[in-house]
Amino acid sequence: MSYLERVRALQAWEPSAYRPFTVDHRRVGLIHRDFIPQLADFGAVLQISDAEVTLTPELGDAASRSAAMAEVLAELRSRDLIPGWRNEPYAVCEDWGTPPLFQMERAAVPLFGTLGYGVHLNGFVHDGDRLKMWVGKRSMTKPTGPGKLDQLVAGGLPAGIGVMDNLIKECVEEAGIPEGIARRAQPIGAMSYCTERPEGLRRDVLFNYDLELPADFQPHNTDGEVEEFYLWSMDQVMDTVRESEDFKFNCGVVVIDFLIRRGFIGPDHSDYLEIQRGLHTALR
Amino acid sequence: MSYLERVRALQAWEPSAYRPFTVDHRRVGLIHRDFIPQLADFGAVLQISDAEVTLTPELGDAASRSAAMAEVLAELRSRDLIPGWRNEPYAVCEDWGTPPLFQMERAAVPLFGTLGYGVHLNGFVHDGDRLKMWVGKRSMTKPTGPGKLDQLVAGGLPAGIGVMDNLIKECVEEAGIPEGIARRAQPIGAMSYCTERPEGLRRDVLFNYDLELPADFQPHNTDGEVEEFYLWSMDQVMDTVRESEDFKFNCGVVVIDFLIRRGFIGPDHSDYLEIQRGLHTALR
Repeated sequence: MSYLERVRALQAWEPSAYRPFTVDHRRVGLIHRDFIPQLADFGAVLQISDAEVTLTPELGDAASRSAAMAEVLAELRSRDLIPGWRNEPYAVCEDWGTPPLFQMERAAVPLFGTLGYGVHLNGFVHDGDRLKMWVGKRSMTKPTGPGKLDQLVAGGLPAGIGVMDNLIKECVEEAGIPEGIARRAQPIGAMSYCTERPEGLRRDVLFNYDLELPADFQPHNTDGEVEEFYLWSMDQVMDTVRESEDFKFNCGVVVIDFLIRRGFIGPDHSDYLEIQRGLHTALR
Repeated sequence: MSYLERVRALQAWEPSAYRPFTVDHRRVGLIHRDFIPQLADFGAVLQISDAEVTLTPELGDAASRSAAMAEVLAELRSRDLIPGWRNEPYAVCEDWGTPPLFQMERAAVPLFGTLGYGVHLNGFVHDGDRLKMWVGKRSMTKPTGPGKLDQLVAGGLPAGIGVMDNLIKECVEEAGIPEGIARRAQPIGAMSYCTERPEGLRRDVLFNYDLELPADFQPHNTDGEVEEFYLWSMDQVMDTVRESEDFKFNCGVVVIDFLIRRGFIGPDHSDYLEIQRGLHTALR
């Protein structure tokens, strides 16, 4: 088992199994060939050809697209084709920073292969010269990765809220971190990946943050999404990431990025370059 | 002018102008079509075909390859075809971490398009809540980037010395940083890029480090490679990287990576993802 295996798992998908999903001539997603037949009933909204699935050009603005897709998704949900419904609208765009073309329920994102966004916070504590890292155990009721290990705080990024504002909200809800401390969180980079998961194709951008916490801080969850928190030595964190799949697939890789940036994985590691290359896939 | 322009400059090269340079069936370099005719006199060492330039398979081990190439390079140098001779052997390999196939003078590396390696150190100081960064001005006698701005310490990585050992050596020589302080330097990641420069094709791997220096530390150069040091506010560093080409092409990008990791460039920057993707080109 190795760090590189964890990173490579973020790149595991079969491009030939997908057809582009386009809106206004822009490719915003990728739909698996097995899911396309389920969309055949919605010809007024989704035009299916051998080359692509297109949102009908008659829907010329974000509001009408969002409304039409909401009806399609509600019907698919009633047919049990969209598990893990969240009631969370996600912006659909070509790339981060490009204008949103419409909004769509988060649970549908991996089925249409549109971009997913998350914020992840590495929470750590100084213990003398050494670092310790806070690890959360996800609730068994989470739709993705139930019971898996996670960062101290992590969450999806719904449409219409800033990255830092969302992080602060999640800090309070997930770990009881007061806003005054949460505001010290430092953005340290983003990662992007495209990979097949049980819920569909994850084309994700994660905005990652580091936050040093006071030694006497004890996190407590308020929204039922975290079962337990552990304060682990870096050795235990490293062994767990490397030797097990206990961390949720993307959370383990957020840890690996922390290990690179803090020198726990150094230039003498034979996979040093390849690990870093694997964290920044272009989502085109 | 923008940070992204600096990063994109690291990806500026025309693949169709190059032929692979192979050794023992491994592609170790890329040679520009304009340089290939200069190699026609050395048929006993370099076999030229339409598809590639190959080191003759009769040279079956690293020592004999290094010796044969040394003779070729000495002759090319005497014909004024290799400027900036360094007397520094570089390991030639397929990728970082793969076994060296032979050694070759550093000045020839961009002409054969083999991998170049460097170590770069971001030296910074806390000034209250704020950071300041040490910036070096390269000597006018340097073969590459004379007079350009640089990290506090940076150097090439010759064959046979560890990355950290080389960094410590450079810290002492370039900036008078005592070994006891230099050892606190923390590896924070590597970058890789392929770009055309006046000296040839730079396919480089840079091992980057951060080092916080005591507020009263004053760098002093001992090897003649640095003309002057400046302790700049981060605003001055950022403006200079963004608005000018005063930093050497790769040193400016090492700064940009620092700005991302320390939150000076955050998720609200429209080029946030693209900047990071551009720092980790696969050198295949």
